[in-house]
Amino acid sequence: MFSVTVRDHMMIAHSFRGEVFGPAQRLHGATYVVDATFRRPTLDSDNVVVDIGRATEQLQQVLAELNYRNLDDEPDFAGANTTTEALAKVVADRLAARVGEGLLGESARGLEAIYVTLGESHVAWASYERPL
Amino acid sequence: MFSVTVRDHMMIAHSFRGEVFGPAQRLHGATYVVDATFRRPTLDSDNVVVDIGRATEQLQQVLAELNYRNLDDEPDFAGANTTTEALAKVVADRLAARVGEGLLGESARGLEAIYVTLGESHVAWASYERPL
Amino acid sequence: MFSVTVRDHMMIAHSFRGEVFGPAQRLHGATYVVDATFRRPTLDSDNVVVDIGRATEQLQQVLAELNYRNLDDEPDFAGANTTTEALAKVVADRLAARVGEGLLGESARGLEAIYVTLGESHVAWASYERPL
Amino acid sequence: MFSVTVRDHMMIAHSFRGEVFGPAQRLHGATYVVDATFRRPTLDSDNVVVDIGRATEQLQQVLAELNYRNLDDEPDFAGANTTTEALAKVVADRLAARVGEGLLGESARGLEAIYVTLGESHVAWASYERPL
Amino acid sequence: MFSVTVRDHMMIAHSFRGEVFGPAQRLHGATYVVDATFRRPTLDSDNVVVDIGRATEQLQQVLAELNYRNLDDEPDFAGANTTTEALAKVVADRLAARVGEGLLGESARGLEAIYVTLGESHVAWASYERPL
Amino acid sequence: MFSVTVRDHMMIAHSFRGEVFGPAQRLHGATYVVDATFRRPTLDSDNVVVDIGRATEQLQQVLAELNYRNLDDEPDFAGANTTTEALAKVVADRLAARVGEGLLGESARGLEAIYVTLGESHVAWASYERPL
Repeated sequence: MFSVTVRDHMMIAHSFRGEVFGPAQRLHGATYVVDATFRRPTLDSDNVVVDIGRATEQLQQVLAELNYRNLDDEPDFAGANTTTEALAKVVADRLAARVGEGLLGESARGLEAIYVTLGESHVAWASYERPL
Repeated sequence: MFSVTVRDHMMIAHSFRGEVFGPAQRLHGATYVVDATFRRPTLDSDNVVVDIGRATEQLQQVLAELNYRNLDDEPDFAGANTTTEALAKVVADRLAARVGEGLLGESARGLEAIYVTLGESHVAWASYERPL
Repeated sequence: MFSVTVRDHMMIAHSFRGEVFGPAQRLHGATYVVDATFRRPTLDSDNVVVDIGRATEQLQQVLAELNYRNLDDEPDFAGANTTTEALAKVVADRLAARVGEGLLGESARGLEAIYVTLGESHVAWASYERPL
Repeated sequence: MFSVTVRDHMMIAHSFRGEVFGPAQRLHGATYVVDATFRRPTLDSDNVVVDIGRATEQLQQVLAELNYRNLDDEPDFAGANTTTEALAKVVADRLAARVGEGLLGESARGLEAIYVTLGESHVAWASYERPL
Repeated sequence: MFSVTVRDHMMIAHSFRGEVFGPAQRLHGATYVVDATFRRPTLDSDNVVVDIGRATEQLQQVLAELNYRNLDDEPDFAGANTTTEALAKVVADRLAARVGEGLLGESARGLEAIYVTLGESHVAWASYERPL
Repeated sequence: MFSVTVRDHMMIAHSFRGEVFGPAQRLHGATYVVDATFRRPTLDSDNVVVDIGRATEQLQQVLAELNYRNLDDEPDFAGANTTTEALAKVVADRLAARVGEGLLGESARGLEAIYVTLGESHVAWASYERPL
């Protein structure tokens, strides 16, 4: 199995509901360093997993929809805690949709899975993996 | 599949038995940077994999049992080389026991696997993964 | 010249005023990985720059005053952009005050300078250095 | 499942054929930071996954065959793009062959899989995993 | 003293002349992870060291002049070894020229020094610092 | 001013005397990731700060004198706490002696300073700088 990963980041504000979150129930924020991994069993005719230029560009566009925002105000997340693990799924699902729309190129249709990791600090990160 | 990882570290002394270890047969030591990853297929009602505060606290307690010690003197490891890979299993098993005891919270009972990596330097690390 | 550095982090929300900031004029947030460096020309009688336990504890207390907060609501920063470089100075000045109050131990009075770096992402960070 | 990883690097020149590569069609180069991971379900009698000294040595020898070279001139890669993902497979396959030849020690025959990651920058890397 | 650093990278081919370089006399290549640090004693009226957007953009443009190239073919470097330390000076000098031309903004004229680090691997890097 | 840095590591056991050290008064250990930086105002005729091959080799030899040892048993350190900051000075002084003996090459006599950082974990490190 082959994989390629590209890294970018976003900076957002949010707050959490639930006593388990302690002080994180207050409005605060995070830098998420985002690693998007694309997997497939064989390489395409160019010997790549995915066009790394397009992968980088599409990841940037997915993050631009969230970047520099207060996620508490985003209708998409109304009523849900935007935890690191939940946001990893949001990014993975949106990238998967773009693969489906052909935005990562025709050969990207050979991808089998996407794996997204969001690093919230030097001591904590979360991931979500899904098939394509 | 979702996962959350928390990082901590411990500093121990030990020695190895067996010619394969060369100079590491002498009493020496290591800083282990420890990454504990918790996995589950769906998030709980708070939208988390595990209460990250409790996960951090329990990892710290597991490491406190080993930290600032000469592992050659620990009865638990008598007769066994405390290699990086063997210690990864020790940490994973002890965390798994704490999950079973409910110390990471009730919802942590939904966890399916634990994955522990011990970094011994900038050029070597070892891992152990086990189901829950 | 000797130095010792300890690392911790904080997660805050804020917004910036000024066209130069573009989308960062919106309410967003950041994880700051904070490195606090203490410098002195000679070691104390224990052979240390500073009691690393106390340094870690005091850094944590300084960050606790900012952590999980919307800095736009903090009276201390009214009318000022809480940029990464400005916050580096805030942390350094508050640590310096604590050195002066003896909170890092008597021998910490031998410190000559403090250097604080705030990492806002994997591609940007800022620092402030001041004498003691 | 246990694993052990060792890290080394190589510095090569190459160029790519195909419009998808844009400016990377020109002769350029890369530092690849190479992580070779060895996996097995149980430890050997020394409590290790693999003799880490031999693993490090064999990885270094595999990389020495590629290091400080223009890969466009290597007959092994004639007609194929030496992308990061393709080179990850080359390194994994050559390590696997050395395991088969007994160069990582007799007990290394208990290894089940090899996983190789090549980091080409702080924002992009690629991997290949294969059974043994 | 304040500073701000931005990170980018470039991927080049080159060779060195001189027996001291051993196998690096052959045509090979490198990824350079480039950290450009800007220093000044006081912040500007926006509370920044430099417009980080412009700093990132100008660093990218300086690197674009070198990226995806065989430096052995660049007239600018004819007769000189393009070592990591020499390239750190090239990047610093070109950034300094852009500061002088006002490309980092008017307030960037308050900068006092530039410090550039080029990381060539996980175990080696080089820097050059110059006043403005 | 130019600089070049090379990285290596060592793994040692030791204990500290003094109540300030708390549990670190027990026999424990550490991995030290060691960065040795060499500084000079101008490059030599090969366009380098120092022969990086020799620098790497000499750092390795300095660390080999300490590596895989219990520093409590080393006569050189009798009666002194082998703290991270104290060991940074030991490494810097021993490298400086080797520069003086010509072991880093004739041109290394143009070096002006050595700066050594020992990382003891992902959250703590110490440095020592000295002239040559």
